Amino acid sequence: MNSLTIIKIGGNVIDNPDALTQFLASFRGIQGHKILIHGGGKIATQVAEKLGISTTMVEGRRITDQPMLDVVTMVYGGLVNKQIVARLQAMGVDAIGLTGADANTVLSKKRAVGAIDYGFVGDIEEVNSGQIQYFVRQNLTPVFAPLTYDRTGSLLNTNADTMASAIAVDMAIRNEVTLVYCFEKKGVLADPDNDDSVIAELTPESYADYKSQGVINKGMIPKLDNAFKAVEKGVKRVIICHANQVAEAVGGSGVGTVLRLGVPA
Amino acid sequence: MNSLTIIKIGGNVIDNPDALTQFLASFRGIQGHKILIHGGGKIATQVAEKLGISTTMVEGRRITDQPMLDVVTMVYGGLVNKQIVARLQAMGVDAIGLTGADANTVLSKKRAVGAIDYGFVGDIEEVNSGQIQYFVRQNLTPVFAPLTYDRTGSLLNTNADTMASAIAVDMAIRNEVTLVYCFEKKGVLADPDNDDSVIAELTPESYADYKSQGVINKGMIPKLDNAFKAVEKGVKRVIICHANQVAEAVGGSGVGTVLRLGVPA
Repeated sequence: MNSLTIIKIGGNVIDNPDALTQFLASFRGIQGHKILIHGGGKIATQVAEKLGISTTMVEGRRITDQPMLDVVTMVYGGLVNKQIVARLQAMGVDAIGLTGADANTVLSKKRAVGAIDYGFVGDIEEVNSGQIQYFVRQNLTPVFAPLTYDRTGSLLNTNADTMASAIAVDMAIRNEVTLVYCFEKKGVLADPDNDDSVIAELTPESYADYKSQGVINKGMIPKLDNAFKAVEKGVKRVIICHANQVAEAVGGSGVGTVLRLGVPA
Repeated sequence: MNSLTIIKIGGNVIDNPDALTQFLASFRGIQGHKILIHGGGKIATQVAEKLGISTTMVEGRRITDQPMLDVVTMVYGGLVNKQIVARLQAMGVDAIGLTGADANTVLSKKRAVGAIDYGFVGDIEEVNSGQIQYFVRQNLTPVFAPLTYDRTGSLLNTNADTMASAIAVDMAIRNEVTLVYCFEKKGVLADPDNDDSVIAELTPESYADYKSQGVINKGMIPKLDNAFKAVEKGVKRVIICHANQVAEAVGGSGVGTVLRLGVPA
């Protein structure tokens, strides 16, 4: 099986030019086929504000009405995505910027209105991994903006973490997938006050232990639960590491936290 | 040789929702492989204005400083491009939105500062037609925004007419290319006051005659000169027609103006 690395970066990297430069240099160093999924960052909020469109966040999620959908399409799908692609090209990485609409790659459904109306927000229904595989096989590096597509002509704002894990799970059918969540910390910490207390490896068993001891705290639990779900669904390993250490972490230099099933080889 | 149709639409289509809808329906009807190149339109100017960035046009060309480059990257590469892709997908056309940076497809050089400093404006140096061919062969329909790439990490604003003809000329190595310039008129007119006075066919000889008679007027001459250059460089035919008649024009229903070398078969 081919190895494939899928990396997700968030707004904390995108919003900081130095952090982005360091990340891209590290990303370039990852051997073999790779895919990047980027989040949105604060630029969308800033652009929206200047355009007179107010931003409403509920539990960290952006409420996306039609004007806000236009803003995130511009900023995520245009500015952020194309700047990353142009910079990767200059570094010799043959990147191709995509939303889920491009080449019909990631299809979603507009979230049903419950207690909260999130607006034009998509929950992923289908990843066209055959198409993505075909790009990867041609040595292209897909760079996904967090936008998917509802089959009826509308883009939908989509959580980048979820998009990364959905793509990883589907690509795991044909590849040995490593999924990397970049972070502002060096990994999952045993002591939140000590940035060097990185837990090197987590299995479902040790994760349960850390949780029962209260070592792994509340904010990390949903992230790690999702990461373990990806592992259960066929992703070989999930790495949680600092954005400027992705190449080392993927290369197995012992940085970051590695999540996998059972006892490591 | 495979037949390939390359269509350019301008701001007049993009700025008018009804015109765009009609165009996309007609575009869908074109048989065989196809590529779309879209211009920018007024949305960039409107967005720039709201963001407090003033627009300067010199002879119809946008002066593109760094803030304006960000705006056109957002609007052309994000909003306009991705909305077209999503709408084509909904119509069953497997579209993929690209700038020249994506998959290293269209490389350019920042225009040297002469009497006018156009800023981040690119003159095309190289079309990676092998890569574009590979998309087309996979039955993808590339949709290009008028942005190219300078090899050193910057996108460059690029004239969509020029981008369409550069891609057409390079793709003509491997394909029988029809290049279509969409227009708000039904074609090149023998009488500017009569919209139905479409000249059905132009050869270099008849074009010279029309020019010497003053029938083809000043504004059309640079457009037609460029179109004939594309034909001389291997493009099989250039069609100038109304945006909502592209399928008929390409299909040979006798609408629009067809430019080709020598006596038609």
